[in-house]
Formats: sequence, structure tokens, C-alpha cells
Amino acid sequence: MSFNRLITKIEETDNPTVVGLDPNLSFVPSFLMEKYFREEGKNLKSASKAVIEWNKGIIDSIYDIVPAVKLQLSYYETLGHNGIYAFEETIKYAKENGLYVIADGKRNDIGTTMNAYGEGYIGNVSYFNENMKVYDVDAMTVNPYMGYDTVKPLLDICEISDKAIFVLVKTSNPSSSQLQDLILENGEPLYITVAKLVEEWGENVGAVVGATYPKQLEQLRTLMPETFFLVPGFGAQGAKAEDVKTAFSNKGAIINASRSIICAYKNMNVDERDYKKATRKAIIDMREELKSVRS
Amino acid sequence: MSFNRLITKIEETDNPTVVGLDPNLSFVPSFLMEKYFREEGKNLKSASKAVIEWNKGIIDSIYDIVPAVKLQLSYYETLGHNGIYAFEETIKYAKENGLYVIADGKRNDIGTTMNAYGEGYIGNVSYFNENMKVYDVDAMTVNPYMGYDTVKPLLDICEISDKAIFVLVKTSNPSSSQLQDLILENGEPLYITVAKLVEEWGENVGAVVGATYPKQLEQLRTLMPETFFLVPGFGAQGAKAEDVKTAFSNKGAIINASRSIICAYKNMNVDERDYKKATRKAIIDMREELKSVRS
Repeated sequence: MSFNRLITKIEETDNPTVVGLDPNLSFVPSFLMEKYFREEGKNLKSASKAVIEWNKGIIDSIYDIVPAVKLQLSYYETLGHNGIYAFEETIKYAKENGLYVIADGKRNDIGTTMNAYGEGYIGNVSYFNENMKVYDVDAMTVNPYMGYDTVKPLLDICEISDKAIFVLVKTSNPSSSQLQDLILENGEPLYITVAKLVEEWGENVGAVVGATYPKQLEQLRTLMPETFFLVPGFGAQGAKAEDVKTAFSNKGAIINASRSIICAYKNMNVDERDYKKATRKAIIDMREELKSVRS
Repeated sequence: MSFNRLITKIEETDNPTVVGLDPNLSFVPSFLMEKYFREEGKNLKSASKAVIEWNKGIIDSIYDIVPAVKLQLSYYETLGHNGIYAFEETIKYAKENGLYVIADGKRNDIGTTMNAYGEGYIGNVSYFNENMKVYDVDAMTVNPYMGYDTVKPLLDICEISDKAIFVLVKTSNPSSSQLQDLILENGEPLYITVAKLVEEWGENVGAVVGATYPKQLEQLRTLMPETFFLVPGFGAQGAKAEDVKTAFSNKGAIINASRSIICAYKNMNVDERDYKKATRKAIIDMREELKSVRS
């Protein structure tokens, strides 16, 4: 019951928000970038060090009032091995501060390959009788396009390690309808079939359902009573509290916001050195906004 | 016309094979693992160094008789930032040896996130007026589940940088049928709709079509005359030359084999220190097998 840890943390903080740590370099406060540039030049290593310091600052400012963080892998991967080092350091710091950590990579591949992803993210890498934890996050996101045998290795790892996966069902982006809403011969859209599969795949499998499609979110919440939801699309992508209110019934949900939180210092037009205060304020505002629809 | 470079290399080597550099640790010759373990202990750094030496050895043994290599990201990611360093070093060495390099991560995410992936893999990461190449591969693989707006940022990067993407259409794994073969209300399976979209997305977009489904491969080859194919599933996954013969018509195809090549030293039961000879022999055998159906 790997979602229980997350659900308990949501109850403790009375806040169903997961903060997206998505360090697009254009979001990183420039005083941090400049600090490391001066020390070691303009390169991927110094950029990654600025990312680490920024992420730690964000965590410092919110760890006591949010249950979880979600790291979007692309922003770390795009900085090369230094970026992955920043990913590792951020995970470590988030866990030390008691946060539930989700790695958002939306991976999907053949079984042996998914097993390797699973070992690295939520299990152990083993060789020569050594077992090593690599990223050791609490949950990872998965794309379902390749079907069950590509998800099964992760389910086995979740079972042993008390970890979880979130499978894409209906995503938050504008053209998610292009494939996901295609009507099948049974008269239902594709995402409904995916939803039924995800519900079958068991208690360690959550669903990603975009806040930007409130009708489908409501429909899926009813169809998948036993499935915990990860709901992206709040804030910068346009969704409001009213759009996500149905997500909280049944098994419950966590709402992701990234840019609206981590770029709060820009949105609130405060000095970038005060980014921590702005981040904390944005989280409190979001928590209060969500309270109005959680009842 | 970014596939032209690959097609030219296929003609030069008279070999439509891409070698999968998928360093599952259980595949790495143990004398290499032990060498680095002795030097720096059993850890992810020493394991990654063994991977680099093994990959370089494989490249040394085949660079003059194959056009391309494909690196499965999971096997590098699962070793943490040291693994990504091995990924970078392998790419560098492959390119120095004239090989076309495909990063196989099957990424898919919202537009801004895909842009970050694209910048890292096939474009430039830019900040403070600096443009930096990170992985700088020739092509990357993409999952289409989230639709066109998630692919568009990569198309823009391909256009500028003369790079390419391969989009999953019909994958080689056993349960690829679970979603990809679902019949839509128009009477056609989902993968046909995906195929039509991929064909529309333009000349820098190839298709991933599994060799393990020869009927669908033939059907898709006819339906997508202008699209270059990446065909996995040959060798260890079970497909034979006869299964891929239709792939070579129209725009053409490259056939991937991983375990059957890089583990040739195990399959041929030779001393693991002779892995280079075994690898080269496996490639020559595969090339000759494919010749029989290329005509």
C-alpha cells in the first residue's frame, strides 16, 4: 500500500500539493547562476550547482507545509551527467527533509529495459552480489503505450520495495486528445480503456490525469475509485481549484504545480534573492485555494 | 533530410544494422568489471568505467562495418550520474569513429519539457548567451501517446540542427497489442492512426516498427512510403531476416540488434576476453543473413 505513506503526509500537512522541481535554466535566479559561473565558468557543472542550491532553497522554504516534490527529469537530463548529479543531490535533500519524492520521466520500454529503469529509480541495482540504491525515489511516472508487459517489471519492484508508479491516462497538454480521446469500436475513448487497465494493475499504480480537462477528470475519478491520482496542469498550465475538486473523492489525489510555485518570485515581482519567501507564499496561497474545494 | 546521412552510411557499409549498446551489467564481461572493481571498489563509478571500456571495445570491433549504434538510455540511467557519464563518453567515441548515434529513451512529455529533452539530446542548451551541446546525438526515440504538441518542439530542433526523431508506431514487445492494436470506430487499429500522423510529421520523423510483427511491418511499410523505419526485435527478441524483408522497400530501414551482437561472446561460448572477435563475427553473420532478403 505504497500510497499510504503519501496519503498520511497529505493529511499531516493538510495540503494535497506536490511541488514540481523543474529547473529550466531560465527559471533559476540569476544571482545563483552568477555565483557559480564566477567560481567555475559558464558550463554544465556550474549550472548544475546553481540548480542544486536553488532546489535546496525551495525545499527549505516548503518542506514543512507540503507532502511531496516531483522532479521533472528532462531539466536534469538536459544538463548531462552534472544534471543527473543535481537530480541525485536534490532527491537526497528532499528525503532528508521528510518529503515523498516522485521522479517524473514518463518512461516506457520493453520488459528488460523497464526492469533496468525500475532498479535504478525505485529498486536496487545488483551485481557481483552487491545491491545498490541509485535514485531511490518513492514513485516514478510511466507511459502506457507499450502495454502491460512493459509495466509488470515495475509492479514486481513496487511490491518488494513499497514503492509506486503513476501511469499516464489523460494528460494535461493541448493535444492529449489526439490519441487519448480517439473513439474505439466499443464507443469509448482510448483513455477509458487505459483507465480500466490502470485500475486493474493494482494498488501500487496511480493515474496521471490532467487538471486542464475537468470533465474527464470527474469521469475518471468515478471510473477508478481505488486509484490514487496525480493531477498536473494546475497554475501555469491554466487549471484552477474548481477544475480539480472532483479529484479528491474516493482514493484521493495530489495536485502538481511547478512554474506557479518555483517561479513565484518572478510572478510576484519580488527581488530574486527573496525567492524562498515568494515560494512559501505561493504554496500557502495554493493550499488555501484548494481548501475551498476540498471540504 | 536528416536520414540521408544514415542512408548514405548504410550504403557505404552495405549493412542496414544498428548495434544496440545496452550495457546491462550482467552482460559486461567480468574481467572488465573486476579490473575496475580492483582499482576503485564495487560501486557505480567503477561499473560505469567497465561499461565505457566495453562499449569502446565493441565500437573498435565494428565501426568499419556498421553504420550506426543505438544506446538504450535505461542501462546508463540506472547507474546514476556515473552511468550518464558513460553514456556521454560512449557517444563521443562512436562519433569519433564515424558512427550515426541514436539515443533510445522513448521520451514523451508536455511541450516545454520535450523542448528541454530536445535541447539536451539533439540541440543546444543555451543560457547567458552561451550555447552548449550536451549529448549531441543524431537521433532520439519518442513515444507518441501525448500527441502532436509534444513532438513539435523536437521537429523545430531537427529542422535547425539536421537531426531526426523516431516515433513508436508498433513496438516489438509481446503486449504491444494491448493498446496499439485496439480497433477504433473507423475499423482500423490505433497503430494505423499513429502511422498516418508520423508520415504527416515530415521527413525528419522515422517510425519504430517491431520486427516481431512481420504482417504489421509489411502493412506499415506500404502505408508510410516516405518514412524511414527503425526496426527492433531482431535476434534475441526472436525475429529473423525473413520477418524484416519488407522493411527495406520505399524509404528503407535500419534493423536493430542488441543482445545477439553484444553478448555474442556468451552465445558463441568463447573466452570473454575475445568478445571483440565474437561481436564482429555476429555482425558479419547478421549482415549476410540480411543480404539474403535485401536484394
